[in-house]
Amino acid sequence: MESAVLKISRQRLNSYIEASAQIGKTENGGLYRLALTPQDQKIRDYFKNCLIEAGLEVKIDDFGNMYGWRQGENASLPPLVLGSHLDTQANGGKFDGVIGVMSALEIISTLNEQQITTEHPLVIVNFTNEEGARFAPPMLGSGGLTGELAKDFIYSIKDEEGVTFEEALEKINYKGNKEDRLTDWAYFMELHIEQGPTLDKEKIDIGVVEGIQGMSWLSVKVEGCTNHAGPTPMEDRQDALVSASKMVTNIYELAGEFSGLKTTVGKLNVFPNSPNVIPGVVEFNIDIRHENDHQRHMACKVLKERLSSIAFQYDTEVTIHTIWDNDAVLFDQDIINSVEASAEEMDYSYTKIFSGPGHDAKYMSAAGNSGMIFVPSTNGISHNEQEFTDEKLIAQGADVLLKSLLKLDKII
Amino acid sequence: MESAVLKISRQRLNSYIEASAQIGKTENGGLYRLALTPQDQKIRDYFKNCLIEAGLEVKIDDFGNMYGWRQGENASLPPLVLGSHLDTQANGGKFDGVIGVMSALEIISTLNEQQITTEHPLVIVNFTNEEGARFAPPMLGSGGLTGELAKDFIYSIKDEEGVTFEEALEKINYKGNKEDRLTDWAYFMELHIEQGPTLDKEKIDIGVVEGIQGMSWLSVKVEGCTNHAGPTPMEDRQDALVSASKMVTNIYELAGEFSGLKTTVGKLNVFPNSPNVIPGVVEFNIDIRHENDHQRHMACKVLKERLSSIAFQYDTEVTIHTIWDNDAVLFDQDIINSVEASAEEMDYSYTKIFSGPGHDAKYMSAAGNSGMIFVPSTNGISHNEQEFTDEKLIAQGADVLLKSLLKLDKII
Repeated sequence: MESAVLKISRQRLNSYIEASAQIGKTENGGLYRLALTPQDQKIRDYFKNCLIEAGLEVKIDDFGNMYGWRQGENASLPPLVLGSHLDTQANGGKFDGVIGVMSALEIISTLNEQQITTEHPLVIVNFTNEEGARFAPPMLGSGGLTGELAKDFIYSIKDEEGVTFEEALEKINYKGNKEDRLTDWAYFMELHIEQGPTLDKEKIDIGVVEGIQGMSWLSVKVEGCTNHAGPTPMEDRQDALVSASKMVTNIYELAGEFSGLKTTVGKLNVFPNSPNVIPGVVEFNIDIRHENDHQRHMACKVLKERLSSIAFQYDTEVTIHTIWDNDAVLFDQDIINSVEASAEEMDYSYTKIFSGPGHDAKYMSAAGNSGMIFVPSTNGISHNEQEFTDEKLIAQGADVLLKSLLKLDKII
Repeated sequence: MESAVLKISRQRLNSYIEASAQIGKTENGGLYRLALTPQDQKIRDYFKNCLIEAGLEVKIDDFGNMYGWRQGENASLPPLVLGSHLDTQANGGKFDGVIGVMSALEIISTLNEQQITTEHPLVIVNFTNEEGARFAPPMLGSGGLTGELAKDFIYSIKDEEGVTFEEALEKINYKGNKEDRLTDWAYFMELHIEQGPTLDKEKIDIGVVEGIQGMSWLSVKVEGCTNHAGPTPMEDRQDALVSASKMVTNIYELAGEFSGLKTTVGKLNVFPNSPNVIPGVVEFNIDIRHENDHQRHMACKVLKERLSSIAFQYDTEVTIHTIWDNDAVLFDQDIINSVEASAEEMDYSYTKIFSGPGHDAKYMSAAGNSGMIFVPSTNGISHNEQEFTDEKLIAQGADVLLKSLLKLDKII
């Protein structure tokens, strides 16, 4: 029973997003809600109550992923799945992840209100630790679910205090059962803010996401020699920070040599980190992304050569490890077509776009049909307390998500 | 009663240094004995016992500076003072500071053994928090004693956990009395390792220290815009770390433009410091030293202009504060002459040298006649667990210290 004019309730969707914005709220209006912390537990408890109130069957799997199941007309069909994540970066924004989960909840509320039952069962999901801000790498919940990351690996990852993922999961009482994992689905869709400036700059309502850039993470250790800042002549120094700084600017400049390449050094630590001591060791991470895997691999190769050469120039040693190497992902064509058609029919402006960040939809697409819808981020700002998206734009994204869902319900 | 052949006991001096090397010992044979920690308390307790065993009167002042007083023939004369500090850097060496205190103790032991009484009273001293590794800036004990730093300022300085100097001093039971401060002295002398490579490279036994380089500490805050590493196009970025890295290499290169200038960035912190987040803020400190104050001020001026220009180039903001600005110090000529004559008479090779690091003798020289003696540091390595000085060289330095002390005892 599809309706051409069926739209979600903007007011109710806002109330869900606003409720989330209160849990882990920072002074500057952002969120500090790292995965598996007491703040995460609080938003999970709130979300679980919402699922129960919406009449959904709640399931929690052994990675802490939370599901709300709604029956369909045909119980033998695999479910249609909507969702994202409710954890945030340290001092992150209140929309990243949240609008994907809350719009899914809102869609259930709308369907309940309109007494619409889909052919397929529906599932809405909150994935664990998408951000990777407490337990790196990111997307552990969806990575575990889809078998892209091993359970032993995930359980043993430690945060900076030495607490393992498993311990943290148990502590907040969200370690569920392996049998409750989502194992099969017809389509998975994730609504998300773009976290980049393209849609906002061009004043486009909807991003029809074609895929996700490939990504490499490298860890780099630069070793020089710790010494006193006062007496050591400049020419005798083996300053790990001077060497690492030269590397950071070179990594940045490399992006200018490969069209479409993005390089970032986001994390860097200096040892011993004392004002009058020449740094003996610097450790940092490099994040390298490109839509084209070959270009990315070429860039990584050139980068490693340059870092070795800089290390030599400054009489330091460098060790480079690849800690993560994910190829680019292309999303399901049925989903791309449905999203495009829905935006067209609802008269929202749209464009095809590639995602820069990784998302849970990336791992999900390795195990089944998956896709994404983007709404604009004001000035492209994300992973920042100033992250913002107009509520009208979020509601339009949720409308397109709902309409696409109903279209896909008829396909398989 | 001066003797031309009077020498200290190398074996006993080693036993004092070895005892110190056991308290706060690291796996790699260095010391982790930050000021006013339980480790510092333990070495203080050991030192206090040594003072008592040597028959000295123990006094502790309100900065936690520890004194051992030995009577002279003429009680109306101001004392001759020897000493240094027993705190260390995090993972520092076992000689920095320690040999100055322990050689003073050994000199007392030698004088006791030989039943020599000087004209002047003798005082040996352990200054509080010379390193500044826990409570910055360094040299708080000597700075407070000489009135170069205000007591309120010192008491309110917090460590990284927010504990104040005063709280930490009380906690280890070393908050003494203002009346017990050393207020007047004939000469203050500090034996120290060079912490630079000059003496070791040139195989010279004794450094006759002429003075201490002037030093500026600047704190720098670079502000860009936190954003997600994946989608943000390179040309839209305001990456605080790329900007700061360019500054660090420029600060290093600036030293090549002013002969004798030393510049160091030893401490640098990135915020939010997450691998997939473009850094929004970087804070770092610059340490700038020169024997010539005018040259140092010129360099600071040029540096500030360059940092502003780099900040602009990378679309970031920079704020620079001078947190410390100390002019160069020239030591007392009587001391310089006595040290030189003593080394000559004892047939040890010697050279005049300027100190790169600051030392307690720096503040002491603002309030009274002060000077220093250096012994070589192997490969110039210091503030490092690998810091090393041959025991023969330390003993020679202590011999010169003793001989100089006896010479100075006859001057005033």
